[in-house]
Amino acid sequence: MPSISNKGIHMPESPIRKLVPYAEEAQKKGKNIYYLNIGQPDIKTPQVALDAIKNNTLETIAYSRSEGAESYRIKIADYYKRNSIEVSHNDIIVTTGGSEALLFAFGSIMDEGDEIIIPEPFYANYNGFSTASGVNVVPVISKIEDNFALPPIEEFEKLITPKTKAILICNPGNPTGYLYSKEEIKQLAAIVKKHDLFLIADEVYREFVYDGVEHYSILQEPGLEEHAIIIDSVSKRYSMCGARIGYLVSKNKDFIKTALKFAQARLSPPTLAQIASEAALDTPQSYFDDVKEEYVKRRNTLISALEKIEGVKVAKPNGAFYCIAELPVKNSDHFAKWLLESFDYNNDTVMVAPAAGFYSTPGVGLNQIRIAYVLNSESLKIAVKILEEALKVYKD
Amino acid sequence: MPSISNKGIHMPESPIRKLVPYAEEAQKKGKNIYYLNIGQPDIKTPQVALDAIKNNTLETIAYSRSEGAESYRIKIADYYKRNSIEVSHNDIIVTTGGSEALLFAFGSIMDEGDEIIIPEPFYANYNGFSTASGVNVVPVISKIEDNFALPPIEEFEKLITPKTKAILICNPGNPTGYLYSKEEIKQLAAIVKKHDLFLIADEVYREFVYDGVEHYSILQEPGLEEHAIIIDSVSKRYSMCGARIGYLVSKNKDFIKTALKFAQARLSPPTLAQIASEAALDTPQSYFDDVKEEYVKRRNTLISALEKIEGVKVAKPNGAFYCIAELPVKNSDHFAKWLLESFDYNNDTVMVAPAAGFYSTPGVGLNQIRIAYVLNSESLKIAVKILEEALKVYKD
Ligand SMILES: Cc1ncc(COP(=O)(O)O)c(C=O)c1O
Ligand SMILES: Cc1ncc(COP(=O)(O)O)c(C=O)c1O
Repeated sequence: MPSISNKGIHMPESPIRKLVPYAEEAQKKGKNIYYLNIGQPDIKTPQVALDAIKNNTLETIAYSRSEGAESYRIKIADYYKRNSIEVSHNDIIVTTGGSEALLFAFGSIMDEGDEIIIPEPFYANYNGFSTASGVNVVPVISKIEDNFALPPIEEFEKLITPKTKAILICNPGNPTGYLYSKEEIKQLAAIVKKHDLFLIADEVYREFVYDGVEHYSILQEPGLEEHAIIIDSVSKRYSMCGARIGYLVSKNKDFIKTALKFAQARLSPPTLAQIASEAALDTPQSYFDDVKEEYVKRRNTLISALEKIEGVKVAKPNGAFYCIAELPVKNSDHFAKWLLESFDYNNDTVMVAPAAGFYSTPGVGLNQIRIAYVLNSESLKIAVKILEEALKVYKD
Repeated sequence: MPSISNKGIHMPESPIRKLVPYAEEAQKKGKNIYYLNIGQPDIKTPQVALDAIKNNTLETIAYSRSEGAESYRIKIADYYKRNSIEVSHNDIIVTTGGSEALLFAFGSIMDEGDEIIIPEPFYANYNGFSTASGVNVVPVISKIEDNFALPPIEEFEKLITPKTKAILICNPGNPTGYLYSKEEIKQLAAIVKKHDLFLIADEVYREFVYDGVEHYSILQEPGLEEHAIIIDSVSKRYSMCGARIGYLVSKNKDFIKTALKFAQARLSPPTLAQIASEAALDTPQSYFDDVKEEYVKRRNTLISALEKIEGVKVAKPNGAFYCIAELPVKNSDHFAKWLLESFDYNNDTVMVAPAAGFYSTPGVGLNQIRIAYVLNSESLKIAVKILEEALKVYKD
């Protein structure tokens, strides 16, 4: 039998999806599950986007340009201008989700054995894209005690080697919900300029920012034009994760030219989804105001309920729709399985994401979980109550 | 300024898209261009697929499962059963186009420096996917004099090294239009079994087969279950290239399990396009009969017109919608540019794909072009007439 590649063997399993068989088993037994494990919001897609799909008059669903439809890219550039980021449509490549944007960015700037520094905990699939690209992730730890703020810049400096090509941040963060301050971005800007590195910012949650604080993008930072690469996506912004539309944004011409070659090889991003995404740019502000209000409410409900549980520590997120909670358990992986397999509270249970999968350093985050607050407040209250009851009886 | 990766530098430019600026320039000058250069058919997408999109009732465009919606995969398995291929929906992963299927296949079975043997001329983007995966393409030449039949099996054998992991064929072929016989598939089966290799067959044109000959799939060949990987796509079959839906099909469980990890990292194939593609499986047979009749007519028109031009040699294709023609020119790259820049016949000109980009061996195919017969017969007649007039005046 012919053999699988080493790369294939080392591709990580998704820390979220690996619990799915246990959830399916629990469901078969008639248990009701509150899903706090994935970033699939229950929010409706804006009506303008749904209508654009229903009213499209295409007779042949043809390839679009590899870099995305020009009309769409022009409107994306306008979106960034409204958000204080000066880019032209030629600085933008439309990709198949933020996922493909990450893959193109990694391939364009890194070769086998190169290194990328990422503050952990981080979005678990960065591991998968790194493995697929033959790249090594070098983690720098951020701590729950600091609310997951940027690790001291000396910690980054210590890790830089001749193989280091980039620093990757997620802002605001999945799984931490942490929003980097202007000051933190300036520190990162200084270090990438000093060491001639790329700074990749995954800004797919850029609009999910609460409490009146402002998002400061790496492309707002002067002098960072040749270094900055933004990863963006319509998935969460317009609750259209299944569209599979994202984008790469950079003012570094060599980078865009290179990424375009990767884009050309795969021909085209999805055409129907581009129609929906272009229309989504006309979503009225009231939609976002409502969504934001809803998430703030959910977050407040979740955090205050969690804080009341004895032994639970939680970092307060300013953005995105995730938080990391530290539990009085030794191994949250085991706890999460146990919740599905062996526990119920009035026939209900919860599914959470064990946080170890968001760390690259072995043994870290074992007592943490990630909670996605993608359910309404009432459900969140019940879910936290279930968690509380579970912790009373759970034994490692 | 931070530097691009070696991989990025070596990513090939698309041999088709690199002429686009010349075409745009010609259009600006008011020239009318007949596009014979790309595989974007003018055929309408089946009405059932378009209707499914218009009538969808989704309120949230959510992620699908990473391997594709189960209902869709079950229907795909039925499709293969109707086509004498016994697979279950668990042997299928839905991908973002055949392009992503190729990328997942390469990543799952090959590491940096591994080798894949491909009969040339071949689909140019195999080069891009190989470069992106760090894999080396080892070409084995097939000849226009043989109508691009399978090269003698000894030629493959000579090229096999410890680094060889797979043989890749395109059946029927882009750019050759050649359909491999059952006998040829059996020869390939024997060699991959003997050397324990994977056999990847790109069957995206599997239904575009003419003259009453039958397509014989690698998954119809007994005993090849652990070796065979099919790449498939809805792009051409239902003229919905912009949907971006394809699939990987294999009975090798390790392979599918590995490819699924790549699929999970990128979360989901496009949701709207899966709805359209699932509906497309109910396209009435009359649609395909009409499409096939149309392509046969186009092919016959094209080939007989080309054969009448002095100095032109053309291989007669049995499948797909491409053919390779040898022209009385030294450098078809130069000729193709000249057609756009410096020639017109009653203000018309043609855009063709220089064939060198479909070869991996340098210097081969320099006097060949690929013609895609994706225009109606009347347009094809005019296009060939333009080519004929051009050859009368062109000087290398
Ligand atoms: C931080 C982050 N980046 C990127 C992605 C990829 O999303 P998509 O490919 O749907 O745009 C996600 C999805 O959850 C994410 O959380
Ligand atoms: C031989 C072959 N394979 C694969 C593809 C990829 O097509 P898609 O990604 O649209 O399925 C093409 C497209 O032209 C092709 O000709």
